[in-house]
Amino acid sequence: MHAANGDSKVRLGVIGLGRRGKALLKELSAMPDVEIRAVSSRNEVRMEEGIRILEEAGRPRPDGYAAYAELLARDDIEGVVIAADWSSNAEIAIRAMKAGKYAGFEVCGAASLEQCWELTRTSEETGVPCMMLENCCYGRTEMALLHMVRQGMFGELIHCQGGYQHDLRAQVAQGMESGHYRLPQYLNRNGDLYPTHGLGPLAKILDINKGNRLTALTAMSSKSRGVHSWAQQHLGPDHPVSKAAIAQGDIVTTMIRCSRGETILLTLDTTLPRPYSRGGRVQGTKGVWMEDKDSIYLEGTSADHAWEPFGPYLEKHDHPLWKEYAQFGIRGEHGGIDYLCLRGFIESVRTKTQTPIDVYDAAAWMAVTVLSEQSVALGGAPVAIPDFTSGKWIQRTRDAGGRYAL
Amino acid sequence: MHAANGDSKVRLGVIGLGRRGKALLKELSAMPDVEIRAVSSRNEVRMEEGIRILEEAGRPRPDGYAAYAELLARDDIEGVVIAADWSSNAEIAIRAMKAGKYAGFEVCGAASLEQCWELTRTSEETGVPCMMLENCCYGRTEMALLHMVRQGMFGELIHCQGGYQHDLRAQVAQGMESGHYRLPQYLNRNGDLYPTHGLGPLAKILDINKGNRLTALTAMSSKSRGVHSWAQQHLGPDHPVSKAAIAQGDIVTTMIRCSRGETILLTLDTTLPRPYSRGGRVQGTKGVWMEDKDSIYLEGTSADHAWEPFGPYLEKHDHPLWKEYAQFGIRGEHGGIDYLCLRGFIESVRTKTQTPIDVYDAAAWMAVTVLSEQSVALGGAPVAIPDFTSGKWIQRTRDAGGRYAL
Repeated sequence: MHAANGDSKVRLGVIGLGRRGKALLKELSAMPDVEIRAVSSRNEVRMEEGIRILEEAGRPRPDGYAAYAELLARDDIEGVVIAADWSSNAEIAIRAMKAGKYAGFEVCGAASLEQCWELTRTSEETGVPCMMLENCCYGRTEMALLHMVRQGMFGELIHCQGGYQHDLRAQVAQGMESGHYRLPQYLNRNGDLYPTHGLGPLAKILDINKGNRLTALTAMSSKSRGVHSWAQQHLGPDHPVSKAAIAQGDIVTTMIRCSRGETILLTLDTTLPRPYSRGGRVQGTKGVWMEDKDSIYLEGTSADHAWEPFGPYLEKHDHPLWKEYAQFGIRGEHGGIDYLCLRGFIESVRTKTQTPIDVYDAAAWMAVTVLSEQSVALGGAPVAIPDFTSGKWIQRTRDAGGRYAL
Repeated sequence: MHAANGDSKVRLGVIGLGRRGKALLKELSAMPDVEIRAVSSRNEVRMEEGIRILEEAGRPRPDGYAAYAELLARDDIEGVVIAADWSSNAEIAIRAMKAGKYAGFEVCGAASLEQCWELTRTSEETGVPCMMLENCCYGRTEMALLHMVRQGMFGELIHCQGGYQHDLRAQVAQGMESGHYRLPQYLNRNGDLYPTHGLGPLAKILDINKGNRLTALTAMSSKSRGVHSWAQQHLGPDHPVSKAAIAQGDIVTTMIRCSRGETILLTLDTTLPRPYSRGGRVQGTKGVWMEDKDSIYLEGTSADHAWEPFGPYLEKHDHPLWKEYAQFGIRGEHGGIDYLCLRGFIESVRTKTQTPIDVYDAAAWMAVTVLSEQSVALGGAPVAIPDFTSGKWIQRTRDAGGRYAL
């Protein structure tokens, strides 16, 4: 799905070379139509690891910068892929756009609405797009559902559910040793700190910012026991994390209302023992799909009151992009979605067009983090979700991204 | 599980002889230690049907009353089973207690907090117990979960989910023809009108009113399309229901917070096409059970990150009452839970003791209906759930109901 070797290359930089940055760099290093001119990390070891990934892939050695501002100052780079931390991704994306570079940045939530507005205004004023690299939007199931919804198979949509349910107790509790940023976040914040894997695909299915928008939310947080209890058992009662007060509740539930009247339910469940699930549910006037049952019920098609396995529907209603991808050869991490998501970004950089996930999407999705924190702090009070398009959502269309459009 | 034939009989009346009232009457007519002295219905046909149920079971012919007040005035009746409608059950229960009769009443939600208080005060002042006949509390799965939770198998509870997800479009839309009370309710109200099948068993699992309590909730309602679209298709565009504005949203989601810090999520989903589910989930620091997966994950027991089927757990951890019930012979409707629930009520009447589901449970559970309506009307604002025990929840114990205790 990349261009032939002879075509001109898309010239990119990569900022942030932790585990995620290196994984993305590896995907990029295998794309013949992409050239990584420069990488940036404040950590020398990671910088060397990043440079080695490209060399081992037989690609030219990139320049390395401790300060990403120097990378952004180069005039031979068209775009950057940013994989720093939750508190930095948007800030770096803003600086990238100001430097005239397409910004593809890893998922995160916002800590202030002001930052969401700054992201939006920067893209509007510079005319440079940015794209949150929300890989789950390119999941095979998620895209098949998008395809089915667009064909009207679910009727009029009424309610969707999603979330991030992933036992990360070890990662959080061992944050002091590993330096992972989740620990300080969980020690100090309480809200849906990681909403986009669930919300992103649902927002696309619900035409958010393109005919629909998120208008308000309320959030509620349970008590916090999971990290403490894991740390007690695995790190011992004298470990600082065992003694710490964890602000983040184990289960944070967020209800969102859309302007067209649909409701979205998000669950963040990352500090209790459980198998992984994003808890997806798409429900309309003609039927319902549930991830946890891996099943679908469509009125008039399914036997009365009987779930059907989703597998055959996935085969039959694969999104055209996934059909193409299967022929081309599914590759890379997370079942191939990282690759597909990066290709969506790269195609927009190459054609100098709007990205399939745009700045308004990023702003609205990231805002759920800070607004859910506010709602939790206010005892579950409803808070308004700003219209970051300033009214343009009513007329905006879904064509951006070409064959990667969502 | 009933007393031997020679023992003295528990003398009851039955008020309300619609579909549900007749079903309960049929269960009661098969109990040798119960004598139905009187029945009441404003509808002559139903009254005759009710009397016939008892005669066909070879039981003495009961007296019939059009006005239930006359039934309540009899001094040879110890308790009444009430199956009127959502708006009348609690009112009749109050009058029954004032007449000195144990009141077992069918599930319903409240339309005012005042009625919940009146129910509570009446039981306190008269010293007569009342019991909401929440049959789902006696479900085999629900009781096994209760048993497992009490043994600590889920660790400390953090989050529970439940609800009532049942495609009732036909029943609602055809309410003009059938006289079913759901239609006027759905035409005029918007909230969780039917919370107790989901909430009841979870409240027992969470020790609500006995060491814990429901403190606040927020609710959000989706747009309303299901009944309209069903009526259009099946009753034609000129039918009054097709032209009516339905107040009740298709999906109402309610988040409840408990004083011990657990969260409860309830979903009312009754006007969209779907297979039946109460969407149960019980989650603690050691594991999680999900109804929709029919699966459980317990840390240290289940393989890492892998769900296990719940079936073997159900066999192994059956509640003692269900083990006894299986030996005795499971009988009656709804998989035997109606019978078990009625027996819980009857045993309390016989022994003149507190019921296993008491007036504080009924008040707190029913209040969720009116409070969810208020929250929806207030745009999702949090509303406080009163402490109907007036502080007694801190010290109350779980022994009421003997072997039927929950």
